[in-house]
Amino acid sequence: MKLARFEYNSVIYFGLADPKEETLTGVALRPTNRDQMIELMQAQTDGRDLNLCGPYFDLADVKFLPPISEPSKNILCIGKNYVEHAKEFARSGFDSSAKSKEENPPEDPIIFSKAPCTMIGAYEHIRPPWDITSKVDYEGELGVVIGVGGRSISRESAYEHVWGYTIINDVTARDLQAVHMQWLLGKSIDTFCPIGPWIVSADELDPGDLDLKCWVNDELRQDANTGDLIFDIPAIIEAISASMSLFPGDIIATGTPAGVGIGYDPPRFLKPRDRVRVAISGIGEIENTVV
Amino acid sequence: MKLARFEYNSVIYFGLADPKEETLTGVALRPTNRDQMIELMQAQTDGRDLNLCGPYFDLADVKFLPPISEPSKNILCIGKNYVEHAKEFARSGFDSSAKSKEENPPEDPIIFSKAPCTMIGAYEHIRPPWDITSKVDYEGELGVVIGVGGRSISRESAYEHVWGYTIINDVTARDLQAVHMQWLLGKSIDTFCPIGPWIVSADELDPGDLDLKCWVNDELRQDANTGDLIFDIPAIIEAISASMSLFPGDIIATGTPAGVGIGYDPPRFLKPRDRVRVAISGIGEIENTVV
Repeated sequence: MKLARFEYNSVIYFGLADPKEETLTGVALRPTNRDQMIELMQAQTDGRDLNLCGPYFDLADVKFLPPISEPSKNILCIGKNYVEHAKEFARSGFDSSAKSKEENPPEDPIIFSKAPCTMIGAYEHIRPPWDITSKVDYEGELGVVIGVGGRSISRESAYEHVWGYTIINDVTARDLQAVHMQWLLGKSIDTFCPIGPWIVSADELDPGDLDLKCWVNDELRQDANTGDLIFDIPAIIEAISASMSLFPGDIIATGTPAGVGIGYDPPRFLKPRDRVRVAISGIGEIENTVV
Repeated sequence: MKLARFEYNSVIYFGLADPKEETLTGVALRPTNRDQMIELMQAQTDGRDLNLCGPYFDLADVKFLPPISEPSKNILCIGKNYVEHAKEFARSGFDSSAKSKEENPPEDPIIFSKAPCTMIGAYEHIRPPWDITSKVDYEGELGVVIGVGGRSISRESAYEHVWGYTIINDVTARDLQAVHMQWLLGKSIDTFCPIGPWIVSADELDPGDLDLKCWVNDELRQDANTGDLIFDIPAIIEAISASMSLFPGDIIATGTPAGVGIGYDPPRFLKPRDRVRVAISGIGEIENTVV
């Protein structure tokens, strides 16, 4: 099941996406209510009828929105969670947390966050504030969407708390990330979290074996498999929930593989008109133009 | 005006607090709606009648809740924002962002966050997970509550966006803060953000000249004035909103002065049954027992 949130003729809908048929079946959202995607996910978890009975839309006709609009907290992100990326980041000199230029991968997961106001839909524009940053980078990532909340969740039961998966581009202002020491500001610029196009329910995927690719202007920059995560999804959920309650609709970005802009010498940062495309097998792809 | 959110006989209310008369005038909250404190603040900003027409409660009879329950993003926090605290933290060895043991105060604000699920009311218990932390510390702070959202807010207009002020104890697990490099996890443990007892509207205070004190078991540990902030409230709002939109109900913890547990040699961490009291002139006080 692929659940999307989208806009058509200025009305916001959510619905079931069928990429093969290139259609969506949706119902209009009552705009005054809470995050209805979270309610929809809970209804599906509880085995209730979703009542997504039409109308039909062509995928090409709608504007995709972030599937979740109001997570209970900032988007949780894992830093340096692929070995080769941890090395390229340490070498780059932009990593305020690196102890040396050739440090080993972290022994404990590095967890930071992006404010929810960063989220944009699968094809919306990334709008860097060029007056305060000139070092904007891309990070293609697998996103995990929590379906059942909890605290002190064990690795063994972690997947019972996952509703599904989505694609995230953890866009980052490297200069702000370095200047402010803590990464929040460099990660939390409005529009710096393209996400979508939909959430794929967990039964459709093996999250430990997904191909993740990222292109800038059709040049392949990142090419990895989620099997290479240093901390896998159960380990991440265990580490976070040991201290912090997770709630339905919470989002975790699992980290990016090697091939980001600062991995190149000289670095290759994003510039206006660049198109960044992130694709994950079994989910689909998002493509966002920098303006 | 002091706006509080509280519980009485299992019903949640919000209302006007009158500490001199030791009373609250409140209305019951409709439990299915959005964060009504934010709606109430907006109504007051717009000059609408708040309709807080009773019933009356004695302050001693109610359970105070976090005034804001659903901010749009994590609570924004400023690190090392008093000179003497920046020095004691660098010396302690727990600061993963310190470049040296005697570093100067930061040139740019260090901004991190606490998840909203950390918030507890003014007199609720702090519940550290003792199986994963043994180094729990207190940080008394002035909290700023945003009333009017915005992006790229200048220092000059910053106070127009502030609805009021509250008291925050930015409780921190120093061991987790060090291990995970980024501070999010060590700061975001459930119950690690006592806040309240109410929000005092901006017209009642001069936020640049407030006495801030923190006691542990009646021993005075922190004693400072908000006039000593390295980055004052306008500078903080300018720095954050340069990249990130602020929304009504967003909360900013402005940083803690010297005197936290790691400032002592040997460090003096919190232990079960410790009572931590934070008082700020013109606002009131919060007191939370560690269990």
